[in-house]
Amino acid sequence: MKVYLDNGATTKMDDAVLKAMQPYFTEKYGNASSLHSKGQEAKMALEESREIIAKKLNARPDEIIFTSGGTESDNLAIKGIAYSKGKGHIITSKIEHPAVLKTCEELQKQNFEITYLNVDSEGFISLQDLENSIKENTILISIIHANNEIGTIQDIQKIGEICKKHNIPFHTDAVQSFCKEDINVKKTNIDLISISSHKIHGPKGIGALYVKKGNKLKKLIDGGKHEYNLRAGTENVSGAVGFAKAVKISNNKDTKHMENLRDYFIKEILKIEKVKLNGPKDKRLCNNINLAFAYIEGEAIGAYLDAKGICSSTGSACSSKELKTSHVLQAINLSPEYLNGSLRLTISKFTTKQEIDYVFQELPKIVHKLRKISPLGD
Amino acid sequence: MKVYLDNGATTKMDDAVLKAMQPYFTEKYGNASSLHSKGQEAKMALEESREIIAKKLNARPDEIIFTSGGTESDNLAIKGIAYSKGKGHIITSKIEHPAVLKTCEELQKQNFEITYLNVDSEGFISLQDLENSIKENTILISIIHANNEIGTIQDIQKIGEICKKHNIPFHTDAVQSFCKEDINVKKTNIDLISISSHKIHGPKGIGALYVKKGNKLKKLIDGGKHEYNLRAGTENVSGAVGFAKAVKISNNKDTKHMENLRDYFIKEILKIEKVKLNGPKDKRLCNNINLAFAYIEGEAIGAYLDAKGICSSTGSACSSKELKTSHVLQAINLSPEYLNGSLRLTISKFTTKQEIDYVFQELPKIVHKLRKISPLGD
Repeated sequence: MKVYLDNGATTKMDDAVLKAMQPYFTEKYGNASSLHSKGQEAKMALEESREIIAKKLNARPDEIIFTSGGTESDNLAIKGIAYSKGKGHIITSKIEHPAVLKTCEELQKQNFEITYLNVDSEGFISLQDLENSIKENTILISIIHANNEIGTIQDIQKIGEICKKHNIPFHTDAVQSFCKEDINVKKTNIDLISISSHKIHGPKGIGALYVKKGNKLKKLIDGGKHEYNLRAGTENVSGAVGFAKAVKISNNKDTKHMENLRDYFIKEILKIEKVKLNGPKDKRLCNNINLAFAYIEGEAIGAYLDAKGICSSTGSACSSKELKTSHVLQAINLSPEYLNGSLRLTISKFTTKQEIDYVFQELPKIVHKLRKISPLGD
Repeated sequence: MKVYLDNGATTKMDDAVLKAMQPYFTEKYGNASSLHSKGQEAKMALEESREIIAKKLNARPDEIIFTSGGTESDNLAIKGIAYSKGKGHIITSKIEHPAVLKTCEELQKQNFEITYLNVDSEGFISLQDLENSIKENTILISIIHANNEIGTIQDIQKIGEICKKHNIPFHTDAVQSFCKEDINVKKTNIDLISISSHKIHGPKGIGALYVKKGNKLKKLIDGGKHEYNLRAGTENVSGAVGFAKAVKISNNKDTKHMENLRDYFIKEILKIEKVKLNGPKDKRLCNNINLAFAYIEGEAIGAYLDAKGICSSTGSACSSKELKTSHVLQAINLSPEYLNGSLRLTISKFTTKQEIDYVFQELPKIVHKLRKISPLGD
C-alpha cells in the first residue's frame, strides 16, 4: 500500500486543477503583458485567478500579488516593509518557517533589530509578551498563522488587534492554513499574508502575497511593472489559473474530513507507550499530526515507514538538508529524550481511513523494533 | 488566419514539453527536498533537468540555479554580486532588458555607481568604450547577449576576454539567445548567464542562472537551503522538467528555419517605402525582425494586425504598460519620424512561410491606410 502523509511538504495536484491549467500551456499561451488579443486572453485568465484568490480572503483583487511561492512571498513581505522603512525593529516568533526566520536573520545582519518571541509548550506566543515587545521603532510584526511542523494555530484576530492598536503592519505566513482556516481580511486586521499553491493541491512555482492597500513595499525583483509594480517578471499564467482552481474547489467538507482523520489518528496512536503529541489538541491545523517518540530517532522511523510505502517527515522539508534538531521542538521545550524522535504526518483530502489504519498496523512495529536496538530504548 | 509573431514575448509550449511535465503534476508530485522515496523521485527529475541545462552551456550541473524566470535570474546575478561586494561600480549598456536596467537603477539609488554604455546605430557596444569604462572599483559587467527588441547579438567572446583580463565578473542576459545561439562557458569567459524557459517553448514561471564556480552571490530569497543555498523555496519540479525538455529538443535545424524565414521577411518587407530595419542584418537573433515605419505609430500597426489575426509587438512585453518611446530605439539614435513607428515580429520554429506571406498581404495595406490618415504621412 502507498500512503502519502507528507502533505505539509507538498500535495498531489488535483485533476480538476490540471484540467483548468491545460489550455494555458499549448493554446492560450500568450504573455499577459502583451497588448494583442492572445496576450489579453492570458491577461483575462490571470485577472480572473486574482479575483478568485482575493475573494477567498475577502480582499480586493488589486491586493493580491502573484509570486513564485510562499518563500518569495515571505521575503517580499518582510524585506519589502523593512527596506521601505530603511531601519527599525521587527517582532517575530521562534517557531517561524525558515523563509521568515532566515529573512529576519539576514535583516539582523543589516542592522535591523529583531525580537524572536518565545512560545509555550504547545507553540502559542503570549499576547502579553507580544505587546510588551513593541517599541517605538517597531516597523513590522510577523507571526506564522499555523505552524508548519506542529500545527499550532495562533490567534491572528487578537494579534491583529494589538498591531492595529499600535499602528504596526502585521504579516502572517499562512502557507499551511490558507484554505484550511478561514481568513477574512475585512474582519481581521492583517496587512500582509503569504500563501502558496502547492500546499492545497495546486501547482508548484506559484504563490501570492496579500498586501493591504496603503502598505508601501520595496520590490524584491526589479524589471517590468508587473503585479502592480511590486514584482517584475512574465506572469506565470497557467500557474495562477491552477492556484485559483485549487482555491475554488477547497471546501469545509474536506477540512472536516481531515480533522476527523487527524483526531482518529491521534487518539489511537497515543496508545503506544512513551509517545507524545507535539502541538495543541485544539487550535490545531486540520491536517497536522506531529508525534514525539521517546528514545528513538525520527529519521529512522521515517526510513522504515518509507520502506513500507508510507511517506512522512520529521519536520519541514525546507530544513531537511540540515538534519539538526528542529528549532520548533526546541522552542516548545520538548524534553531531551523526545527531541529527536519526532514524526510529522500530514494528511490531505485524499487520505482515507484505510490508509491511516495501515499506518497503525506498521508504525507500532517499527517503534518497537527501533526501541529494541536503541541504547536508551525499551 | 491566426499568425503568432510575438515569440520574443513568449512562445507556444511544445507538446513534447507538456508530455514530459505531465507525470510531475498528479503522480510524481513529491517535494524534491523530502527525504522519502516520493521526494527523491522528484529530486532525481530535478537533477536530471539541471544536468540537461548545464550540458547545453557546457557547464557543471552545480552551476545551474533554478529561478522563477529570466527577470529573477537577472536580479539574482546583479544584486547577488553587488550585495556580496557591498559597494562598487557596475558597467552595463543602454539597451538592456528592464530586468537589468531597473535593477541597476535601483542599485544606483543605493549608492552603487553605474556606467551605461552607448551603442552604435545597430545596437552594438564599443569594446573600446567598455574597456575605457573599467575602473579600479568595477565589480560587475552586465551586457545583454541578444537584444530583446532589435536582436543585436553582442560579441560575448570578446567582452568575456576583456572581463577576464581585468578580473571582473561578466554577466549576460541570454534570455533571448539561449538555445538559438551557441553559448559554451568553457570557451567563453562568462560568470553569470540568465536564461528562461518560456522563450523556448517551455513553461512560464521557471528560469535559471548559471553561476560559474568561485563567484560569491548574496541570496535574494532567504529561507531553506535549496539550489545550493542560493535560492530558497520549494523546487518547481514540473517547471524544471519542462524547461529541460525544451532545451533538449532545441536544435540547429529550427534555428536555420527561423533564420531563413527572417531573411525572407526582411528582404520582402523592405520593398515598402520609408521602412527601415532596426538592428543589424548580420549578428542578428535568428527570430527577430524589428522594423520602423516612418510617420505612423507602431501601436496602431499592431492593433490593425491584431484585427487580422496577427500578433506582433512594438518592443518588449515587459514595457508594454509604459507606452513610452523605446529606450533601445532611442539608444540607436533612430530619427524622429521613425521613432514611434516600430514593429517587432518575432518568429518561432512553428512559424511557416504561408504565415509570413499572409503578413505580406496585410501589412502593406495597413501601413498605407495609416499613412493616409497620418498628419505626417504619405
